[in-house]
Parts: sequence; structure tokens; C-alpha cells
Amino acid sequence: MSLRDEILSANACYAADFGDKSKLSSPPARHFAILTCMDARMDPAKFAGLSEGDAHVIRNAGGRASDDAIRSLILSHKLLGTTEWFVIHHTDCGMESITNDAMAELLEESLAPARYVDGGWKNTQSEGGSPEGHYIDWLPIKDQVQSIVDDVRRLRAHPLVPRDVRLHGFLFDVKTGDLIEIPEARAAGRQAA
Amino acid sequence: MSLRDEILSANACYAADFGDKSKLSSPPARHFAILTCMDARMDPAKFAGLSEGDAHVIRNAGGRASDDAIRSLILSHKLLGTTEWFVIHHTDCGMESITNDAMAELLEESLAPARYVDGGWKNTQSEGGSPEGHYIDWLPIKDQVQSIVDDVRRLRAHPLVPRDVRLHGFLFDVKTGDLIEIPEARAAGRQAA
Repeated sequence: MSLRDEILSANACYAADFGDKSKLSSPPARHFAILTCMDARMDPAKFAGLSEGDAHVIRNAGGRASDDAIRSLILSHKLLGTTEWFVIHHTDCGMESITNDAMAELLEESLAPARYVDGGWKNTQSEGGSPEGHYIDWLPIKDQVQSIVDDVRRLRAHPLVPRDVRLHGFLFDVKTGDLIEIPEARAAGRQAA
Repeated sequence: MSLRDEILSANACYAADFGDKSKLSSPPARHFAILTCMDARMDPAKFAGLSEGDAHVIRNAGGRASDDAIRSLILSHKLLGTTEWFVIHHTDCGMESITNDAMAELLEESLAPARYVDGGWKNTQSEGGSPEGHYIDWLPIKDQVQSIVDDVRRLRAHPLVPRDVRLHGFLFDVKTGDLIEIPEARAAGRQAA
């Protein structure tokens, strides 16, 4: 069975029992948004207790407050009324294993998947690369707690983020499932912009 | 109870029954990624049948193939080996209700949430705005099916997206829970870059 068929088959079961979810409207019922990582081990609905209709969920590599995450969060507040945002990064994140230079150099040699060997990424092929990776900020993470604080601080200082949007910073532990609040992020979220 | 306390309380239940999920590793077990909208009504794990560890999930306003989504997808393929990507937009998307000019003008007047009245967004306050919104492409959507095709085409043509990554385009119906395949997106995904 192809992935496409697996997804459509799982979806047919979901849609068959859709029930009252057809009546949900666009604005999040619980008025908040989560910004978190794309990591496959994280299911924000499960680890934060969300039902369909509750909250916006924005995800990218690292859960970073990128320009695009900010675009999404401002739309979330301005058009759909969220007033509290949670930045959630996680332990064992792939973004801690790479630098901008290393990523660009890997891609320059080959676009094919690399392997993590002896503490570093190595290409498995050496043809078909592109220099385009040198023009992208991959938003790597050196220190996971600091990146949460930095991202909350960036949101707090953004000219389109109003003062009354509440900001939080959490770390998700992929080995235990725990959300751990980062006090420095809480402080950064409370500071005057 | 504050939202923060609600989330931490739900998380405590989740972590208490974490079980074998502690053994999951970073690369997605089913080797694919979903790019979809932040919309609160959508739960990709539920509507596409994902368990923790299965797939990367990238979400932003509209589910657009923004530069940041492309950053995330290339990291997903290059470092964590995904080889198939699903672009999933949805019916009744907020991004269909706005234009770049309208969003910038709303924000210029006020950062506070607007209301949708008589087919258009109106501010509820008229102070505390910022001109910064004029410098952002909000990635609005005029035609939902076309936006899926456009996004698949953008991914296919990107110099860092290898030819052997398979691309799909689906529309999620928020009234029925159905995923509907978009044949033009499938064709765009198969075209030579």
C-alpha cells in the first residue's frame, strides 16, 4: 500500500466518525496558539490536551520564531483572536546537530539524505548538490534553553505583537513526555518590549 | 485555572502514560512530512492517522510553501530522510478572507483583533497600530485549489528539492473531515522541475 493510500484510508475512518466537528468555526475556542517543532515524536494535541477547534498550532524545524512563524502568529491574533502564545522547543532536536555552514556544505555536495556518524553529518553521495543552501539561514540551535528565551524575546520585541499578548516558553522532553517551563522565557515574555 | 495550568495539567496525564514513546528516535519512521495550515479545526495526527514518531508536521497560516516551510522540508529530507511530502490546505481558510493590502491597513490602524462583518474585516479599535505590516507578504489565498497547485509547483521547482522527493496536494474539508486529492497538484508534483 502506498503512503498516499495509507493516509486516505486512515482519513476515511476519521471522516466517517466526524460528528459535531462539522460545526466548529474558525476562531480557536481556547484563544491560544502553540509554536513548536515539526519533530515526529511530538503531538501537540496529545501532549498539551487539545481537541479540534481549541488552538492554532504552528510548526517548523526547531519551533523557531522565524519570520513566517511571526506572520502566522500575527494573523492568529489579529484575525482570529488568540491572546496567549506558547513557544515549545524540545530535547534531542536535530537543529542542535547542525550549523549554517555545515548544512550549506552538505547540500553543495549532494541533495540526498546525509547520515549522522561519529558526532557529525556525512553525505552518502557526492553528486547532484546545489550552492543554494548558502543563501538560507537554517536557524540552527546551539543551546536549547537559550533558543526558547531568544524566540520569546523576539516575539516580545516585534512591532506587530501587542503588549497584551501573553508569551510562554516551554521545553518538551522527548524521553519523558514532560513539558518543562523555562523561567527565563517567562521573564522575557513579561519584559517591556 | 489559567491556560498555562490547563496545559501543564493535561501534559502531566500524558507524561504519566508515556510508555514506549521514550524509545522513539528522531528520523520519522514512515519517512514523510505533512505541510498544512495552523487552523485549530485540523489535527493532522487524527485526520491522516499518525502516531508519535511517524512523520514531520509543518504548519503555518494557510499551509503555504513559504521560505520557512521550505527550510523545514529540506532539513526534513536532508538530515532525517523523508522522501514524500503532502501539502494540505483546507476549506473555509482565513487566508481566503484577506489581501496583503487589507491586512497591512488593519494593522496600521490597530494591532487589536479585528472582526469579520458583512464580508470584510473591520477594526474594533483605532489606535496603537504599526506600519510594519506593509513590509510583510501575508501569503493570502485567492483560490484554494490553485494555491495547493502553486505550492506543490514551488516545491518541485526549488533548487534544493531533489527530483526523487514525491509531492502530493490535498484539500481538507472542515465540514466533513475528508481529504480530497487535487489531481492538478499531483500533476504539478510529477512535472519536470
